[in-house]
Amino acid sequence: MQKIVLGFSGGLDTTYCVKYLSDERGYEVHSVTVNTGGFSAEELKQIEAHAYRLGVKSHTTVDAVKGYYDRIIRYLVYGNVLKNNTYPLSVSAERLSQAIAIAEHVKKIGAVAVAHGSTGAGNDQVRFDMIFHIMIPGVEIITPIRDLRLSREEEIEYLKTKGVEMNAEKAKYSINKGLWGTSVGGKETLNSRGFLPEAAWPTQVTKTGEEEVKLTFVKGELTGINDKTFAHPTEAIQYLQTLAGPYGIGRDIHVGDTIIGIKGRVGFEAAAPVVILKAHHALEKHVLTKWQLNWKDQLALFYGNWLHEGQILDPVMRDIEAFFTSAQDKVSGDVYVQLKPYHFQVTGIESVHDLMNSRFGKYGEMNNGWTGEDVRGFSKIFGNQTVIWSLVNEVAAPATGGPATGGQDAAAAKSGGHV
Amino acid sequence: MQKIVLGFSGGLDTTYCVKYLSDERGYEVHSVTVNTGGFSAEELKQIEAHAYRLGVKSHTTVDAVKGYYDRIIRYLVYGNVLKNNTYPLSVSAERLSQAIAIAEHVKKIGAVAVAHGSTGAGNDQVRFDMIFHIMIPGVEIITPIRDLRLSREEEIEYLKTKGVEMNAEKAKYSINKGLWGTSVGGKETLNSRGFLPEAAWPTQVTKTGEEEVKLTFVKGELTGINDKTFAHPTEAIQYLQTLAGPYGIGRDIHVGDTIIGIKGRVGFEAAAPVVILKAHHALEKHVLTKWQLNWKDQLALFYGNWLHEGQILDPVMRDIEAFFTSAQDKVSGDVYVQLKPYHFQVTGIESVHDLMNSRFGKYGEMNNGWTGEDVRGFSKIFGNQTVIWSLVNEVAAPATGGPATGGQDAAAAKSGGHV
Amino acid sequence: MQKIVLGFSGGLDTTYCVKYLSDERGYEVHSVTVNTGGFSAEELKQIEAHAYRLGVKSHTTVDAVKGYYDRIIRYLVYGNVLKNNTYPLSVSAERLSQAIAIAEHVKKIGAVAVAHGSTGAGNDQVRFDMIFHIMIPGVEIITPIRDLRLSREEEIEYLKTKGVEMNAEKAKYSINKGLWGTSVGGKETLNSRGFLPEAAWPTQVTKTGEEEVKLTFVKGELTGINDKTFAHPTEAIQYLQTLAGPYGIGRDIHVGDTIIGIKGRVGFEAAAPVVILKAHHALEKHVLTKWQLNWKDQLALFYGNWLHEGQILDPVMRDIEAFFTSAQDKVSGDVYVQLKPYHFQVTGIESVHDLMNSRFGKYGEMNNGWTGEDVRGFSKIFGNQTVIWSLVNEVAAPATGGPATGGQDAAAAKSGGHV
Amino acid sequence: MQKIVLGFSGGLDTTYCVKYLSDERGYEVHSVTVNTGGFSAEELKQIEAHAYRLGVKSHTTVDAVKGYYDRIIRYLVYGNVLKNNTYPLSVSAERLSQAIAIAEHVKKIGAVAVAHGSTGAGNDQVRFDMIFHIMIPGVEIITPIRDLRLSREEEIEYLKTKGVEMNAEKAKYSINKGLWGTSVGGKETLNSRGFLPEAAWPTQVTKTGEEEVKLTFVKGELTGINDKTFAHPTEAIQYLQTLAGPYGIGRDIHVGDTIIGIKGRVGFEAAAPVVILKAHHALEKHVLTKWQLNWKDQLALFYGNWLHEGQILDPVMRDIEAFFTSAQDKVSGDVYVQLKPYHFQVTGIESVHDLMNSRFGKYGEMNNGWTGEDVRGFSKIFGNQTVIWSLVNEVAAPATGGPATGGQDAAAAKSGGHV
Repeated sequence: MQKIVLGFSGGLDTTYCVKYLSDERGYEVHSVTVNTGGFSAEELKQIEAHAYRLGVKSHTTVDAVKGYYDRIIRYLVYGNVLKNNTYPLSVSAERLSQAIAIAEHVKKIGAVAVAHGSTGAGNDQVRFDMIFHIMIPGVEIITPIRDLRLSREEEIEYLKTKGVEMNAEKAKYSINKGLWGTSVGGKETLNSRGFLPEAAWPTQVTKTGEEEVKLTFVKGELTGINDKTFAHPTEAIQYLQTLAGPYGIGRDIHVGDTIIGIKGRVGFEAAAPVVILKAHHALEKHVLTKWQLNWKDQLALFYGNWLHEGQILDPVMRDIEAFFTSAQDKVSGDVYVQLKPYHFQVTGIESVHDLMNSRFGKYGEMNNGWTGEDVRGFSKIFGNQTVIWSLVNEVAAPATGGPATGGQDAAAAKSGGHV
Repeated sequence: MQKIVLGFSGGLDTTYCVKYLSDERGYEVHSVTVNTGGFSAEELKQIEAHAYRLGVKSHTTVDAVKGYYDRIIRYLVYGNVLKNNTYPLSVSAERLSQAIAIAEHVKKIGAVAVAHGSTGAGNDQVRFDMIFHIMIPGVEIITPIRDLRLSREEEIEYLKTKGVEMNAEKAKYSINKGLWGTSVGGKETLNSRGFLPEAAWPTQVTKTGEEEVKLTFVKGELTGINDKTFAHPTEAIQYLQTLAGPYGIGRDIHVGDTIIGIKGRVGFEAAAPVVILKAHHALEKHVLTKWQLNWKDQLALFYGNWLHEGQILDPVMRDIEAFFTSAQDKVSGDVYVQLKPYHFQVTGIESVHDLMNSRFGKYGEMNNGWTGEDVRGFSKIFGNQTVIWSLVNEVAAPATGGPATGGQDAAAAKSGGHV
Repeated sequence: MQKIVLGFSGGLDTTYCVKYLSDERGYEVHSVTVNTGGFSAEELKQIEAHAYRLGVKSHTTVDAVKGYYDRIIRYLVYGNVLKNNTYPLSVSAERLSQAIAIAEHVKKIGAVAVAHGSTGAGNDQVRFDMIFHIMIPGVEIITPIRDLRLSREEEIEYLKTKGVEMNAEKAKYSINKGLWGTSVGGKETLNSRGFLPEAAWPTQVTKTGEEEVKLTFVKGELTGINDKTFAHPTEAIQYLQTLAGPYGIGRDIHVGDTIIGIKGRVGFEAAAPVVILKAHHALEKHVLTKWQLNWKDQLALFYGNWLHEGQILDPVMRDIEAFFTSAQDKVSGDVYVQLKPYHFQVTGIESVHDLMNSRFGKYGEMNNGWTGEDVRGFSKIFGNQTVIWSLVNEVAAPATGGPATGGQDAAAAKSGGHV
Repeated sequence: MQKIVLGFSGGLDTTYCVKYLSDERGYEVHSVTVNTGGFSAEELKQIEAHAYRLGVKSHTTVDAVKGYYDRIIRYLVYGNVLKNNTYPLSVSAERLSQAIAIAEHVKKIGAVAVAHGSTGAGNDQVRFDMIFHIMIPGVEIITPIRDLRLSREEEIEYLKTKGVEMNAEKAKYSINKGLWGTSVGGKETLNSRGFLPEAAWPTQVTKTGEEEVKLTFVKGELTGINDKTFAHPTEAIQYLQTLAGPYGIGRDIHVGDTIIGIKGRVGFEAAAPVVILKAHHALEKHVLTKWQLNWKDQLALFYGNWLHEGQILDPVMRDIEAFFTSAQDKVSGDVYVQLKPYHFQVTGIESVHDLMNSRFGKYGEMNNGWTGEDVRGFSKIFGNQTVIWSLVNEVAAPATGGPATGGQDAAAAKSGGHV
């Protein structure tokens, strides 16, 4: 029998896939569940048991949380990436991490085929397909749900014939949980108007009042919270989630362009990610130069979009990551954040790299380093080209008769024209 | 006597300037107060009276509110411009509008000199200087406070000798109010850490509970609120401010790069601007294509920074405005926003231009327009270059022996190489 | 019988399509030849006769030369677009113009299907497909050569059975001629190394010596050559081609990314386009500001790539065109170009908008407008942030003990923190 | 006596500076000549002797050629940097290298002041000033020629009084030679029109005919020519110059924006730099992905401009260099270039990283990896958003009655809205 690896979540679609791939297509099914922070140990055990009950030849649980951070989230933080200025790419990033882990499993066990449970209507199919084409070229990709265009009811019916009972009732909200946020889809997000009701959010608001947290960053990575240090940034993220989540922070609706060209809308809650991104950005505003901030913004815009579209393996992503990593060299210090119900406020930073340093110049004061006269000269030169443009194009009329021009060629030649 | 035009706010610095320019420098002083939405009629009357008491030859009040919108704010909305992702450029934009109005007054009355009350330590001096150099080249620029490096006490002392009594007590918070937001500077913003206390905010929080507002945009401009229409967008902005301001919405601290290269930090409240920008952006996410959104972001990043640095008259700004205006062609529709104490939530949009239109494709469904098979083909081609890159660079090992290559040159030649 | 519109060049592939579509598929075939500058009147007559001999119901010749310029080439000039810094997009632009004309013909005659002769291996299929999906959604697209994967020999054989004799010999070089350049594919361009031999170039070098031409631009468009004016820029382009072509100017090899992710290489000759682009750019360097030049470069990079990929109808292209058009406002003047065998040299420009205007400042001379002292101040401020960065991060050690800091908060507060 | 370091070229201006600084200002003058490839050993010896004759306390010759390459030129090659698409930044880059070496000398000998001979009219003053402000803050910068606004004649006169005879005749062309090109300024470049005459070019054309050279790059650096390897890329550059220079290759006129806002024009010859940049770019077109090429272009545009403006020490430049270095990982292989009088042609490349690799897909052929059907699907999805845009905005009219919409919400909900 030929081996196939199946990305397996234990839901209706991938349950269907196990039976279909083994019974209809004759494959030896090896299921893989990749945990990117959304499953508890208990859930993973249940998924495994479910897989074996369905008859998989082997089931593998991949703990991808740290790898997910090291390979992707780290750079989303460096880049302050919020797609369309809102969405931390919770699901997009996760899918790529999962696809990579599945492809690696294919290589490891020498499977000839790989399957995923995506439908033909969303982003995920493209992400899985592309990672597989790139990492395991020539391995056949089978997508039963997409190919057969099955309805929920047809899947349930089929499974019944195989002796597998699945809950026929559809959840009111479709939830996808991971380290970098939880997406929530429901009837309110299917149209262009409507916000998720309070009860739909996986993390309910249980905290009132407010509290201040101190986030410590070292070269752009969150390493400590309230002076507590962590073995790995993923632990800091998870700890911050326990602090900020119960305030209902980081809830929003993302409206964006899918890879396949249509618009999509989805709710999400991402307390820790959003707080981290805003705190990190605040620190950067103090320690990076103007053009570092500017280029980081431009590159991050592309990086987030290209990642969203599944292109994590394009080598340009490595080049941008090299830029980001270089730019994080001084992004170390503490950031203070006030948490409150439904929102938060960055209240300040402390860093030895802070360029807003009273020793070397402060906004609103003149400084030993320069004088008002210097700025007067600066302003003249800084606006010089537009001055000339206005004079040449007669937008502005010079107050005087205009500069004399006699004998200037000689002077000009003097400097030798070394541009 | 030679005429000088003085930008006049009636504060200590510009009061000093009147006396200094007339008594010490011998100018005939013509004061100008440019209202960009921060002054009430009453305040303007008091400023005028104060100017005449000081002995100005003429005092002119310029109502620049509509012109300020038409020339600048309109484009900040089109571009969703928030400097450093936070600050609506409340003061930056206003100063340019003021400088332009003052320069026009210089031209109108044929003054030989112009004065502003800026110190040598901030952005404003550069903005005023540059606009004057460009619009009224050759007109002398006099900046007594910058040039003489005067302290507050010295100014008060001098004015006393002239029979002018000014309040010796310094306000705890320095406030600058305008149509596009109010800045608040104080001891908390002078350092890198610290948030303004509740009492420091000019608009106190007096509303509780929540309310929904409907904002109507026509080609990117706010024309209606809750089905009430307005003669000019400035009136809509002001009306929205009365609705959203008392919730304490739009308060934050801006940390940014000054034109002179140091970092600055300042508090601001800008309820209407921030709500408008976010509502407008939400609408754009529904009606613009992916690359329209992308390029708007890139251009707006530059536009905001260059405006902040006083370069509004660089013709590149006209070119970007042409892009923005073109991109607003379909940005019409209603946006729904939930206002709550200290925050707000865009809850949806309605537009005939909405690309998330169930008639032509909806996220999560397959569509008459394409099939899963199409997406399968798409994914293959979309990832093709990275597939080849991985094979060429032996990152990926093909499962099969690799494609045959015999006889392909002929086939290749067939298509004629028309790239 | 159902109507189908076929893009028809009269070559082997589209000849095959006529017979296949009528005889095998039962369509009433309406052939269209779109002339984008590559066909002579004689050739168009022959193509028409050939079409009718094949039995088309109607044949239409569309003269798209001016429309091609007005809709596309104009903006390629405005943007100085050379893909990968080399290729004027001769064929890419042309295909879109042709696809648009064909789609318009489909709408005009109410056809239910449209066909093109593209193979499954190049860019053109994507360009035709996309334009048709966008402009005539729901109209079936039939691509016999792609779908049937036919070889040259099979097509010839099939046509023989239909009584159509086609030349069995394949041309050594595949040539595609149009207003904006001629592509030349052959065995030398199929691999990564090799240059086309002298004999392969459609325009042979017949001029020696050198000559100067004067190109007159008005708002970015070529309107005159050597003081001869033209009714339409297309005529100026064609005239310049007669002057510059016989020098062998504008020959090169383009290496680029196809839409389908592979690399392609093709020779081209484009004397007039390359001379115009370089002359236009030279003029722009004199009349545009630094940031106009910069943003034009960034937008043009995208514009050219997106056009190349067939996305001319994305509305973002209209927005970029609005930018380009705005930026051309002052791009008027004369450009002098020296033509020589195989190369040319822009030798200068004359324009009333020239910012290198000795009246208002000249490189290498000090100017009435500013002094060395102004530049000294400028340099201090312009480098200020990196000075601070170096001091804060202890890269630089201050020569003195560092600025005093006492009593500065008060001074700072004075300016009010209006950023 | 207080020590001052003077950047010294031995020309009239810096000769004047020695005398002025010692005799009028009372400094102990330490002269430094930084060789960035423009001086022969003999010339350096003469400069040293001249310095000692003028009475400097010490004279130091810094051999900066390799450091200049390692620190700057390397990245200009990585980025294919040609300012305004023309100029390799020959002089701009060199000045920074010189300024850095001078600043290091100041630190080494503990000088309290530093001097350079720049006038107040060009770019160099800003470059020197800024590097000094950043690297040696607090050290006084003295610029006699700028400050005293001296004419050539006044300098000669003054030196005569000191017993120093300088050639009173001004060279017709002002030439600045260095590793990365030679600039040539003269009367033809002072205005907007005019090209340098044959005799003005430092390297005369002595080769006729043509020759092919093979350039070998390893990770973006030129390491070999015609199978000859070099100890350091600087030697390869110098060797290529001996091959290509006598063809008159790489001559052009640069028109650009000076730092101080005016336009400048200067001739240059840079045979080796231009050939290397074009060869390197050709190789990159074969081995980099589309978006690597795209982002390199965007970053290089800024990098070149910012370097030109003297901002080499802004840390953003290190970040961009990190990107560039990462992107060079596969830029290894051979590039073939045909040299001819006045021009050259890249004729091809060979590289194991070549993505135009017939094993994995070739332009113009269908490939094992994908089918025409895949491309058909791709085209549908790739144009999808503009299809929807056109339908929504009624630019396109669907041929059919439009898709049915019944019962699709349920299907949509199925995919869970995970964007």
